[in-house]
Amino acid sequence: MAIVIIRQDHKIELWKKALLKADSSLEVYSFLEEHPKDEITMAITWKHPSGSLSGYPNLKCIASAGAGVDYLFEDATRPNDIPITRIVDPFLASDMSEHVLAVILAHLKNLNAYKAKQIANVWEPMEYLRIKDVTIGILGLGELGALTGTDLTTYGFKVQGWSRSAKNIDNVATFSGPDSLSKFLESTDVLVCLLPLTPATEGILNKKLLSQLPKNAFVINVARGGHMVDEDLLELIDNGHLSGACLDVYHTEPLPTSHPFWNHNKIHMTPHYASVSDTNSVIPQLVENYKRLQSGEELQNKVDMNKGY
Amino acid sequence: MAIVIIRQDHKIELWKKALLKADSSLEVYSFLEEHPKDEITMAITWKHPSGSLSGYPNLKCIASAGAGVDYLFEDATRPNDIPITRIVDPFLASDMSEHVLAVILAHLKNLNAYKAKQIANVWEPMEYLRIKDVTIGILGLGELGALTGTDLTTYGFKVQGWSRSAKNIDNVATFSGPDSLSKFLESTDVLVCLLPLTPATEGILNKKLLSQLPKNAFVINVARGGHMVDEDLLELIDNGHLSGACLDVYHTEPLPTSHPFWNHNKIHMTPHYASVSDTNSVIPQLVENYKRLQSGEELQNKVDMNKGY
Repeated sequence: MAIVIIRQDHKIELWKKALLKADSSLEVYSFLEEHPKDEITMAITWKHPSGSLSGYPNLKCIASAGAGVDYLFEDATRPNDIPITRIVDPFLASDMSEHVLAVILAHLKNLNAYKAKQIANVWEPMEYLRIKDVTIGILGLGELGALTGTDLTTYGFKVQGWSRSAKNIDNVATFSGPDSLSKFLESTDVLVCLLPLTPATEGILNKKLLSQLPKNAFVINVARGGHMVDEDLLELIDNGHLSGACLDVYHTEPLPTSHPFWNHNKIHMTPHYASVSDTNSVIPQLVENYKRLQSGEELQNKVDMNKGY
Repeated sequence: MAIVIIRQDHKIELWKKALLKADSSLEVYSFLEEHPKDEITMAITWKHPSGSLSGYPNLKCIASAGAGVDYLFEDATRPNDIPITRIVDPFLASDMSEHVLAVILAHLKNLNAYKAKQIANVWEPMEYLRIKDVTIGILGLGELGALTGTDLTTYGFKVQGWSRSAKNIDNVATFSGPDSLSKFLESTDVLVCLLPLTPATEGILNKKLLSQLPKNAFVINVARGGHMVDEDLLELIDNGHLSGACLDVYHTEPLPTSHPFWNHNKIHMTPHYASVSDTNSVIPQLVENYKRLQSGEELQNKVDMNKGY
């Protein structure tokens, strides 16, 4: 039994070292080096090249190295009978919650606009908003959405959330299903997208949805670029319906510098870094699942193959 | 008995209207219009021109329209036997607390740096900090400092505070007096200055104090520009000891565009707007004190003439 790491960035050796540090008895390979394909039982993946998951006759688990697994469902060459696991990491959720709070407060207190004015050498006070006067609407109430919503109530925000299936979260007004979406949007001042990316949610942040938000609403997308219809967002900001947006995710990453988001003064960009799997907190659960594979126990954090998350 | 409003900005008529809306029986004048000087018993002031407080033979109260009163103590022509009151406004403190939280989180999550990178068309992820790993040190534990410290503990920060006289605040480690200042500074990752400006605190944010912070500490000044020795701050940022600063207050406001803060990539500026007295929440306490003057009752929120705040 052995593990292969498949990813296209420079982090393979870092992950290999971290796995061996956690358990030096592991047999771990990079997919770029010579490795015994029939011994591989677990593939630890992140945005693998299409086709790279085939040719492993004894593969028993595809372990995504992040919370997202949409990239696995997009790969038609993936052996679709192999269970997929994802990272459920307390820091992944709390990091996201902290990032969302930071971005909401920066919006309330005009910090991005002040930075732009500083760079342009302009002194110009702007009215600020208060936490108590702002309703946050969270689209998607999975681990990340639920924790972010709960944290925001602790900080004094009014919080409501929408999800496909009904959820119960203390102090958060919850809405579920397509019929309640309009009611949820109408009373949302700051919309935070934390949905999984599935065929049902692709392009959901479109003109029809965004125009149901009240005038001057602000949009935060920290889920996936595929949720957003970029032209619709630009249109609704430019016609004055939305006051702006803060985005961490894009259709193409890095976002090409020719994209109109870069130079738009009401769009604030972070480079897909709101919440990043940290090897120190993620490795233990990958090692635990590998041990469960070896002993034939049930895997943790399995993805529902029908829901796609 | 009558009120005169003395300030140099464009807000006099707005304040007059707001006072009359709260109580239409009030007799209120702008100092710019003809007014019966011997009938004036209360002057509501904000950064009044020097000399403008003399010539009122029956003046019984100088009411600062903000939390700060340092500008009154700087005016040698002020009749110094007249009691001074200041604004103690719940929003003034909670607005400050929200602003400080916004600025701390923007620092932890690199939001100002990302905005500058976006303007320069650069995609460059940066490591972020987590709330649980950061100790905030509040310099000054008056109404604003105490509430900001308490709020920051609610959000999960480790918080400590220093003040001239000993204070007790739940979950905040408190230090007092000059002897404990070094110990307080050594363990502070983000220093927040919320001191009153007095002869004892002028220039307190100098090389001697700032260099006792640990390497990479971050400095936030939301008190008064007079607390900061600008050259010392620049030296400690430029030699790599401090990671940066966020400033809301300056020696001269608006800050002249020739000042090196404007174009420094590790200094983030807001235009003295962290917490602004809002007529709706401030007017009632001014009217209350005016009624107390009329009935001879003790004034609320009186300034200690020896301490200067």
